[in-house]
Amino acid sequence: MSKICSSKTRPSKILVLKILFVILALAGAASMARAANGPDVTQFTLSNGLQVVVIPDHRAPVVTHMIWYKVGAADETPGKSGLAHFLEHLMFKGTVKNPGDTFSQAVAEIGGQENAFTGSDYTGFYQRVPREHLKEMMAFEADRIENLVLTDAVAKPELNVVLEELNMRVENNPSARLGEQIDAALYLNHPYGRPVIGWRHEVEKLTRDDAMAFYRRFYTPNNAIVVVAGDVTPDEVKADAEETYGKVPPRAEIGPRRRPMEPVQEAPRTVTLADARVEQPSLERAYLVPSDTTAKPGESEALDVLADVLGSGSNSLLYRNLVVDKGIALNAGAYYDGTALDYGRFSVYGSPKPGTTLHQLEQGIDAVLADVVEHGVSADELDRAKTRLIADAVYAQDNQATLARWYGAALATGETVDDVRAWPDHIKAVTADAVQAAARHWLDRRRSVTGYLVNSLQSEEKRS
Amino acid sequence: MSKICSSKTRPSKILVLKILFVILALAGAASMARAANGPDVTQFTLSNGLQVVVIPDHRAPVVTHMIWYKVGAADETPGKSGLAHFLEHLMFKGTVKNPGDTFSQAVAEIGGQENAFTGSDYTGFYQRVPREHLKEMMAFEADRIENLVLTDAVAKPELNVVLEELNMRVENNPSARLGEQIDAALYLNHPYGRPVIGWRHEVEKLTRDDAMAFYRRFYTPNNAIVVVAGDVTPDEVKADAEETYGKVPPRAEIGPRRRPMEPVQEAPRTVTLADARVEQPSLERAYLVPSDTTAKPGESEALDVLADVLGSGSNSLLYRNLVVDKGIALNAGAYYDGTALDYGRFSVYGSPKPGTTLHQLEQGIDAVLADVVEHGVSADELDRAKTRLIADAVYAQDNQATLARWYGAALATGETVDDVRAWPDHIKAVTADAVQAAARHWLDRRRSVTGYLVNSLQSEEKRS
Repeated sequence: MSKICSSKTRPSKILVLKILFVILALAGAASMARAANGPDVTQFTLSNGLQVVVIPDHRAPVVTHMIWYKVGAADETPGKSGLAHFLEHLMFKGTVKNPGDTFSQAVAEIGGQENAFTGSDYTGFYQRVPREHLKEMMAFEADRIENLVLTDAVAKPELNVVLEELNMRVENNPSARLGEQIDAALYLNHPYGRPVIGWRHEVEKLTRDDAMAFYRRFYTPNNAIVVVAGDVTPDEVKADAEETYGKVPPRAEIGPRRRPMEPVQEAPRTVTLADARVEQPSLERAYLVPSDTTAKPGESEALDVLADVLGSGSNSLLYRNLVVDKGIALNAGAYYDGTALDYGRFSVYGSPKPGTTLHQLEQGIDAVLADVVEHGVSADELDRAKTRLIADAVYAQDNQATLARWYGAALATGETVDDVRAWPDHIKAVTADAVQAAARHWLDRRRSVTGYLVNSLQSEEKRS
Repeated sequence: MSKICSSKTRPSKILVLKILFVILALAGAASMARAANGPDVTQFTLSNGLQVVVIPDHRAPVVTHMIWYKVGAADETPGKSGLAHFLEHLMFKGTVKNPGDTFSQAVAEIGGQENAFTGSDYTGFYQRVPREHLKEMMAFEADRIENLVLTDAVAKPELNVVLEELNMRVENNPSARLGEQIDAALYLNHPYGRPVIGWRHEVEKLTRDDAMAFYRRFYTPNNAIVVVAGDVTPDEVKADAEETYGKVPPRAEIGPRRRPMEPVQEAPRTVTLADARVEQPSLERAYLVPSDTTAKPGESEALDVLADVLGSGSNSLLYRNLVVDKGIALNAGAYYDGTALDYGRFSVYGSPKPGTTLHQLEQGIDAVLADVVEHGVSADELDRAKTRLIADAVYAQDNQATLARWYGAALATGETVDDVRAWPDHIKAVTADAVQAAARHWLDRRRSVTGYLVNSLQSEEKRS
């Protein structure tokens, strides 16, 4: 799912994926500037099962090297929430050959950057370094696939770091707290309902042994994807990969990724989170919808366009109607998170102007949605959305790391390189009818949770 | 938890436990009529770990024989919901020695009754037969602990029986559908959020192999409690049990029963279920509260008394206030389900009179709750509730099977025979302060879900 916990940077969970998503267009969109469909992405699989993707980008002598493990918070054993993310942190604790922070020191010494992130479906690590250091990075990553050394002496203090992260990111952030509650209510059965960072009472009990068991089960070359973007050729990458990653034997059998799926959703839900720090009330409604991976052909792209028309920027339907015309909202918008193995999430949100209740704002949002369901979108709205989605993707290609991250996320959630490359063409092919059909079919309140963020439950009660 | 699926009878899920609960008083309450504290319950454990409880009842030459396995729906692997209940059905398919329905035929031939039931925390089987047949019943049950024979040829058709049960009990029952949705929203993390009968899409995929694996893992003498109530002596029962159950070796190690627990609940939720068959809208609010097993001393008994004062019968606060005085409700009440390993559930409910909205009714209910939180209950209300709870228990002792069921449910959810016997004394000891404290502490909307049952989502929208 589209929740990302990064151990070093602190991107907004929604924003990262939102940007990612748009960026992805890029892969294909660069197409417009160069070849038919995006950069010349090459992929191959080593004999130990490791997938490798190479994205050439010769503008600067740097390279972005990422390893994505196809395991995330949704793969945790119930009761061990936060384990995927805890292990991500612990992966920086050193190996037999590279003890302590040898790896991080090496990255720093060559002026590189590194980072890591955990989502519901994947866990990833990356370095951005001068091109000549690629093989060294690969050797470090290959080493820590199998040789992690973990003692209680390093695991226990790191758990406190994780708990402090939970404190900062979630508990001190009313909007993040509401987000957790919305997810918990949106999924009746699927583990996407659990926070990636974990429930505090479970995180507190995670141990070194839990982390090692998870590591042995899921960290294996046949469960990983290496993405290399930068000033390199596929042949160089292949040679380096074989000499480094290629030496790591598979450590575990990886079966199909099957999680408990949702029953038919038939009852709209609400969640109200009161937090004294809330000065500006807001609401967000999340609908359970298909992901890029589970959608029928064209459907997730129709949802992309729908989200853009409805809620991207100050010319969108929600903004124009609620902020500009009616003047009842301070902001309003929509977005679609489709990069996930099992389900996507379509969200609309807004904040009322003083004097307007959340209930009135919600009625306003519902009226805009009902209008799209009934009348669809205009040719002009459709064209502008498609152009913008593809253009955003083109601009995003400027960032090598973002591009690498797009391919990694797509491949880790069940898509293919071809899916990614074809995305701009699929966006171009979206019709007004498809957008209206997506709205009609998927903006179904029975599959939704509406979350209200308020200052106090008493103030919320006044709304109705 | 207080959800029971019985394969043969069809008791309302709430009623059964409610009755059970009240009945329990009986065990101890009979005390008042006889000894100090209830019938002379005897218990012992066989060398293979099987617990046996004997409740003498010499009024008629019959005996109720039950076996309770300490495994229920909350112990299922995620993705296999309904498995505990499916296996309950399959336990009637015969063994090597007693193929097909030999066991059921034997019960019928001696004029006996039999039944079975599944809850979140346990699965049970029982027979009520003439006393001289007790040992025969024990031999049958002992045999099917270890010798179940299951083929696809019998498992597959039984799955259709289960699906039809799901259809009848839940899908054709709007109130049961809402109940499932309330539970799913009440538990953010704990498996009590899953229906005992299972989610249809998961039940449909259950197999014979799933059932056999579950059987081998959990059906073992060291995970079972045999309860015998009736015209027998402990010595007879012990001799019979040793010659039958005593021959069954432990089949599996049983670890502690640990399920994923709830995070701090901090956001009130709502669920709205629309069903065209609903002629009379209603609402139910469920609060997550302690169970008999997890509560601090006296706390669950205070919740029993609180539920009685608030919502049991036409003299209760909710009924008097909303139905009689204000005339805005057709009915209103409250109940507490405390028989569970991990959490209890305190519920208030009501149906509005025509002309009253659900929202107005909810405000009325909240006003009654707020009044109890602020002013507590009167000495008279307290005394009447305590007297009624204990008296109900005394009347209930008339039913041997109910009494046996009470002990079985209590023991299968972590209570002891002494806990059951002491219940009437604990009820007597509840003070008005304790009831007010329970209301103040536990009637906290942040730990609640309010479910609305309506005819259509449009009609519901008018309420606010």
